[in-house]
Amino acid sequence: MDFEIIKSLLNGENEEKIVLLVMDGLGGLPIEENGKTELEAASTPNLDALAKKSMLGLHEGIRTGITPGSGPAHLSLFGYDPLKYIVGRGVLSALGIDFDLKKKDVAARGNFCTVDKEGRVTDRRAGRIPTEITERLCKLLCEKVDIPGVEVFLEPVKEYRFLLVIRGEGLNGNIEETDPLVVGEKPLPATATHKDSEKAAEIVREFVRQAQVILADEHTANMLLLRGFAQLPDWPKFPEVFGLKSIAIAMYPMYRGVAKLVGMDSPPASDSYEKEIDLLEEKWNDYDYFFVHIKKTDSYGEDGSFEKKVHEIEKVDALLPRILALDPSVLIITGDHSTPCAMKYHSWHPVPVLFYAKTCRPDGIEEFGESACRKGGLGVRFPAFDLMALALAHAGRLEKFGA
Amino acid sequence: MDFEIIKSLLNGENEEKIVLLVMDGLGGLPIEENGKTELEAASTPNLDALAKKSMLGLHEGIRTGITPGSGPAHLSLFGYDPLKYIVGRGVLSALGIDFDLKKKDVAARGNFCTVDKEGRVTDRRAGRIPTEITERLCKLLCEKVDIPGVEVFLEPVKEYRFLLVIRGEGLNGNIEETDPLVVGEKPLPATATHKDSEKAAEIVREFVRQAQVILADEHTANMLLLRGFAQLPDWPKFPEVFGLKSIAIAMYPMYRGVAKLVGMDSPPASDSYEKEIDLLEEKWNDYDYFFVHIKKTDSYGEDGSFEKKVHEIEKVDALLPRILALDPSVLIITGDHSTPCAMKYHSWHPVPVLFYAKTCRPDGIEEFGESACRKGGLGVRFPAFDLMALALAHAGRLEKFGA
Repeated sequence: MDFEIIKSLLNGENEEKIVLLVMDGLGGLPIEENGKTELEAASTPNLDALAKKSMLGLHEGIRTGITPGSGPAHLSLFGYDPLKYIVGRGVLSALGIDFDLKKKDVAARGNFCTVDKEGRVTDRRAGRIPTEITERLCKLLCEKVDIPGVEVFLEPVKEYRFLLVIRGEGLNGNIEETDPLVVGEKPLPATATHKDSEKAAEIVREFVRQAQVILADEHTANMLLLRGFAQLPDWPKFPEVFGLKSIAIAMYPMYRGVAKLVGMDSPPASDSYEKEIDLLEEKWNDYDYFFVHIKKTDSYGEDGSFEKKVHEIEKVDALLPRILALDPSVLIITGDHSTPCAMKYHSWHPVPVLFYAKTCRPDGIEEFGESACRKGGLGVRFPAFDLMALALAHAGRLEKFGA
Repeated sequence: MDFEIIKSLLNGENEEKIVLLVMDGLGGLPIEENGKTELEAASTPNLDALAKKSMLGLHEGIRTGITPGSGPAHLSLFGYDPLKYIVGRGVLSALGIDFDLKKKDVAARGNFCTVDKEGRVTDRRAGRIPTEITERLCKLLCEKVDIPGVEVFLEPVKEYRFLLVIRGEGLNGNIEETDPLVVGEKPLPATATHKDSEKAAEIVREFVRQAQVILADEHTANMLLLRGFAQLPDWPKFPEVFGLKSIAIAMYPMYRGVAKLVGMDSPPASDSYEKEIDLLEEKWNDYDYFFVHIKKTDSYGEDGSFEKKVHEIEKVDALLPRILALDPSVLIITGDHSTPCAMKYHSWHPVPVLFYAKTCRPDGIEEFGESACRKGGLGVRFPAFDLMALALAHAGRLEKFGA
């Protein structure tokens, strides 16, 4: 839905609270013929009881058939069409490690790699060196690289991956990647794809020249490759578009980061689901919109641990009474995407949604699961970003359209 | 879905095979109150067994309420939005009779008609003269028309209809039709709607002048009308957009032609369903994507022969084990549009789809029919062109979107 239309219909503040509870990678698949999915296999008496008073459905984060990354999938749940609001990988990388990216910084994802004497790439991931080596190399480069007029930051991410951030005046991120994507080729020179980024591209080339010299004697990783150059996007902010004072409650930096990207408050991490709900209770009177993120459903999906994913869903079910005790006007319980244990990876399969609101027309379905959601009133295969206007409506925050 | 996005997500070649089996005009209507549709009345044990392991739904070829022609309906099944990829009728006419249209040819649909002494149209279809007369008149005009610098082709289509093709340098097809659409009016002069087509329009006017003289003494049809001027479109090609080596297996030229239009291979016609499946088996290792077309379900729909349409569906059901024996990763069974016997014509009614894939989340519905499809996980009234991204996803050919 067009943000201008939403904004034009906002009727000002009220006391109604909206909660979006995301179990990451919630959607699943049966692991045996005619079997149940993870959500269906879980014992969820509280979710099932709530389902009966709610509307069910199955959303798609991006579009039909497209497997969502976590960043775009959350944007969609926040009401942003992820094909319109595209965030560069460098920025996502910064969000994922809680790096405090500034407005004009240029960020990129980096790989340490190895090159032969002619400078041709021999291993694009430097034998997947452990994070500790990457930490040391980042520190070394930070100390030794010297480019007048700019600050250069290198932060380890995981294994051979790091974040590069360049801070200075007049920089832009329209720069092509240096990764040749195949071994046997030399790294590509960083070239600007728009003339607004020529200065930044020259700085990146200088950085790479110095880095190559500094890394020359390193055996495990004597070169680096850069991809996904990007800057913080200048998007309409969630609290303004939707008129909601909003807060993200999440354990992992990535999710707080995406929420921050759209202007939500995003306090430091809790380290358990219980503490997430503690924070929800604590902040209940200060905000209109609460995004609560549960990570491990996705992690166990990626591990293929069916029983553990089931158990994680059951833990969330056990916490539901605490959320309901707060008496939210709207409570949306869903995932950002599917991560079926059967696939050990994100997938494109539609994601179950439970949409509870005092004003909803209940489906009367007595279970929360993929098959039950298929029969629900929200429909199947609708875009996740549709949910936001529906939440506003059920929170009594939208005027009627036209007279 | 935007082709550029699809292309950016392709992950290279793999061995997974996709089959699209189209029963033309499959969708139907009951012929008595509370009765069954043609598909529901058919005994289809193999389709029903497959339905249980598949996702069901009802697609729309063009948009809600719009009755699809066969050309645009197939484009939609191939993933091309038929409101964006519009193919001129002249070109469809050429495809329908297997005319080998070249890139710069201008094609038009023609009607033989009758005019009075003042040149006013008296019958736009010349009393629906039989095809044999049209054959003779086309031959006569081909022999006698003489326009320096261009080749003119006339080919009979059916009854009073023919195909006109003009071949030469610098021709374009932006030309208004000459058919006044009502009797009592004179044929309109062929005028260019864009200056790139002025040369071609002048040639068409000269052709019409000569044709009028040549036909002057013909009693049954002494004039002609031209519509749907068009050239082969320069569209993104299916094998490149979707990364699939693809082949069309169809008995009728029209369907091979539409497939050729998007760059599929399209070998000469088979003359039975069995031979179509023979060809499918023979080519199994050479392609990634197989479009198999079944014509007669539509023909019997247009005849209003309920029993015969039912029987045709049963014949296809009997062939299904041979297709399944090839072990496709994705098998989509659907129609291009509905052709209810009750209406004896194409219709806008949504078309049943059975989408089988090894990675699908089965609906567990034990029947393939319109009512069963309404309960399926694919949803109802979705655009047919959504199916293509879904097929790619289930064939493991798409990367995830964003990190």
